Amino acid sequence: MAEKITPRAKDYPQWYLDVVQEAGLADNSDVRGCMVIKPTGYALWEKMQRGLDKLFKDTGHVNAYFPLFIPMSYLAKEEEMAEGFAKECAVVTHYRLKADKGVPLHVDPEAKLEEPLIIRPTSETIIWNTYKKWIQSHADLPLLINQWANVVRWEMRTRLFLRTAEFLWQEGHTAHATGKEAEEETHKMVRVYQQFAEEFMAMPVLVGPKSDGQKFPGAIYTLCIEALMQDGKALQAGTSHFLGQNFAKAFDVKFTTADNKKEYAWATSWGVSTRLIGGLIMTHSDDNGLVVPPRLAPLHVVICPLGRTEAERGPSIAAAEKLAAELRAIPRDDFYGYEPISVKIDTMFDKQPGYRYAEYELRGVPVRVEIGPKDIEKAACAVARRDVPGKDGKKFGIPLADAAGYIDTLLRDIQKSLFEKAKKHRESTTRTANSYDEFKQMIEQPGFIYAHWDGTRETEDKIQEETKATIRCIPFDGPTEPGTCMVTGKPSAKRVVFARAY
Amino acid sequence: MAEKITPRAKDYPQWYLDVVQEAGLADNSDVRGCMVIKPTGYALWEKMQRGLDKLFKDTGHVNAYFPLFIPMSYLAKEEEMAEGFAKECAVVTHYRLKADKGVPLHVDPEAKLEEPLIIRPTSETIIWNTYKKWIQSHADLPLLINQWANVVRWEMRTRLFLRTAEFLWQEGHTAHATGKEAEEETHKMVRVYQQFAEEFMAMPVLVGPKSDGQKFPGAIYTLCIEALMQDGKALQAGTSHFLGQNFAKAFDVKFTTADNKKEYAWATSWGVSTRLIGGLIMTHSDDNGLVVPPRLAPLHVVICPLGRTEAERGPSIAAAEKLAAELRAIPRDDFYGYEPISVKIDTMFDKQPGYRYAEYELRGVPVRVEIGPKDIEKAACAVARRDVPGKDGKKFGIPLADAAGYIDTLLRDIQKSLFEKAKKHRESTTRTANSYDEFKQMIEQPGFIYAHWDGTRETEDKIQEETKATIRCIPFDGPTEPGTCMVTGKPSAKRVVFARAY
Repeated sequence: MAEKITPRAKDYPQWYLDVVQEAGLADNSDVRGCMVIKPTGYALWEKMQRGLDKLFKDTGHVNAYFPLFIPMSYLAKEEEMAEGFAKECAVVTHYRLKADKGVPLHVDPEAKLEEPLIIRPTSETIIWNTYKKWIQSHADLPLLINQWANVVRWEMRTRLFLRTAEFLWQEGHTAHATGKEAEEETHKMVRVYQQFAEEFMAMPVLVGPKSDGQKFPGAIYTLCIEALMQDGKALQAGTSHFLGQNFAKAFDVKFTTADNKKEYAWATSWGVSTRLIGGLIMTHSDDNGLVVPPRLAPLHVVICPLGRTEAERGPSIAAAEKLAAELRAIPRDDFYGYEPISVKIDTMFDKQPGYRYAEYELRGVPVRVEIGPKDIEKAACAVARRDVPGKDGKKFGIPLADAAGYIDTLLRDIQKSLFEKAKKHRESTTRTANSYDEFKQMIEQPGFIYAHWDGTRETEDKIQEETKATIRCIPFDGPTEPGTCMVTGKPSAKRVVFARAY
Repeated sequence: MAEKITPRAKDYPQWYLDVVQEAGLADNSDVRGCMVIKPTGYALWEKMQRGLDKLFKDTGHVNAYFPLFIPMSYLAKEEEMAEGFAKECAVVTHYRLKADKGVPLHVDPEAKLEEPLIIRPTSETIIWNTYKKWIQSHADLPLLINQWANVVRWEMRTRLFLRTAEFLWQEGHTAHATGKEAEEETHKMVRVYQQFAEEFMAMPVLVGPKSDGQKFPGAIYTLCIEALMQDGKALQAGTSHFLGQNFAKAFDVKFTTADNKKEYAWATSWGVSTRLIGGLIMTHSDDNGLVVPPRLAPLHVVICPLGRTEAERGPSIAAAEKLAAELRAIPRDDFYGYEPISVKIDTMFDKQPGYRYAEYELRGVPVRVEIGPKDIEKAACAVARRDVPGKDGKKFGIPLADAAGYIDTLLRDIQKSLFEKAKKHRESTTRTANSYDEFKQMIEQPGFIYAHWDGTRETEDKIQEETKATIRCIPFDGPTEPGTCMVTGKPSAKRVVFARAY
């Protein structure tokens, strides 16, 4: 059925690329490291944007747009950031090409910029340079701004969605009058990401700070959501940074407090990217192709009318159209993002039914309805759920009169069921290591490992070097009993979570 | 009241910049020619995106995303395009910065790209390079794709929204099996732009082809929508290009026809940009600030409860909250983009009412409601419409019980009324010139001028040189009687429209 897709058990990385390719999500472009997001992939991203954007607005944020270009000197102003991003910047040095007669198109050497511009790898510097103009008084704070944008990080090893030179993302940049308020924002937004990951993507995540070794350049600390992929590797899915006064100091952003003093503003930044699409794929999809949770599905339901002759097809098509209309008329609610349920009637009658079904399984449509001549006789249809492959996921004899309501309920069930399944997978592969030897054995098997660590960069680096595992996060909701570091025997306040990661 | 804004009669360009600044729409950034789109301006753009995106999807288009970078050699493949855009390209030449100890951050000379990349000024080349992979057979056509993106054109003289080095836009790129079909698409999309301009922006437009002198580099012909600003200058507000087989030939995109022949695919492209925000401002706004048509207003209604004491304010606030809830509960429909009516309750009690009203007039909120102690006595409120300034636009004694319905109707009336007013302005300043002398006199006054032209580039250039007027379009719906060119006396099939333009 799905010979287009390499089975997961055989070669997981190849399976991933096959799903991306065959479900029509993205292509490598001929520009090094840059991807083309194809219509089906972009439709997924649009759904994610809608969901996230609403959560941001519901928590008081507004959108704005800042320049793509960052003068090199801005990056230099925050030392950690300059160090963190210098090695992977696309640099604009000229502003004109020239095509002289008989000479090929070339860069005009006379059009050199006085100062090179880098393509934003992240926008803290250009935004805080702007905030200097916007923030004068405590009355101007908090400033709660988000931007949807493309960014560029010149990565040497790229992989569709997971790591690309250009990617799409959102970056929140907020300014506050107190450190306490900025820290509350940092925590609030990582919880918004958790909500999005769990309620929309049906992808359970751990939430907590990164170790110092893994934090964002320029941050005091970084909180993250960390997901577990089917192959047992971790994926950092979103981060929220408490930036302290680092950027206010670098760009001289001071405000007048209520008692008329001057103080530097406090900052946060937080972002998720098209990487989430990679996470979505590796959380739910299977050997038949893509599986998409209904809340993010661009197409919810495909109806396949069946029939060998025109005479047989006519009533099937009529029933399909009636059901489609009923589905589209279901009142818009939050579950569907206040849009109508999206329904398509498939009419590839020149193909075998099995071929038609496989096509929509490949593309991850959550529910498929089949209506053939025998169903018409019984005024019924068959309904198949994508998340349960094969016979177990297909129910025959659903009365056509009840089908719309049945499918509406089923879509909501699928959403829950996908989350439960992913959570069960995470729980069943999460282990606790009590010695470094035990850890080294465990890390060869998929999943998270809770272990004690002494809190130093040195030990973290040693573990990574020897086992390729990194500290994914120090979870807020993990076990809290103290112990001793599995490597050095020094005291450890609580266990942290290790895994190999994307 | 609005001393922040230079009156239009005094200095129209300064008035424009004042409105952009004071209504919080955009700022110049410190990066040459690049703007920062501030939250109010971006909220307008989001509304425009939603409206346009729905029109595109309703006409069968899907969104995708292509790389920001275009290899220089791609641009070189289409000669007219290379010529048209070479002079204003931002060029990436390096992929790394370096910060050696004790040396300032600098471009790493060892990280030079083999081939320079330009930042997309428009994406025909990178997209058609991709279409080569996607188009094999007539079954792959038509390909109806749109992209929302940022683009860069290194303009020397910039102006917020109207002409900036970086701007946001959408660009449709479609591929078809026949020239006829591609031409139909070109026409269909310019009509979609007209619909958006007139029904959402309340901005009447002329529709028709550009003269050859004004067409897009690489196009066979360009259709446009052309609007008239309050100062009598024209604004090109959107274009739709029939590209023939130019890009298919440049990138070797052939498909197998139904009768098994190989043919080059036919192309269109079409785009509108954040420039539309400039057009919106200069169509409707006044000396008190921004005026926004309700269909694009991020905030529809502001309610100002009034009162000098807490005791007076309490009932006003309670009535405001009740009315806000009623407004938000009005069923979502197409007019409001299937979102609830957006309502804010203003509580700047420390300011004078006049100051509060002026603030929201500045920001263009379509409807303002005032509820004070005397209104409460009568269970009524006052409702002011932003498009009719002063007393004429304010109605007292609207019963609170009827207010929500009244405001819903009023919002729809304002939308119509803004369009009618703009159309009347255009009609009252549109003239017909029968000789070049008459034309030269007329062009010193605002508005469009219909005149005969011999169809040659030479005459067009001469007229532009001597009068600064350009041919805005050859309108589909203009007068059709033939005549003779006002400059050369040669035959002219029909009158074309001239104006000075932004």
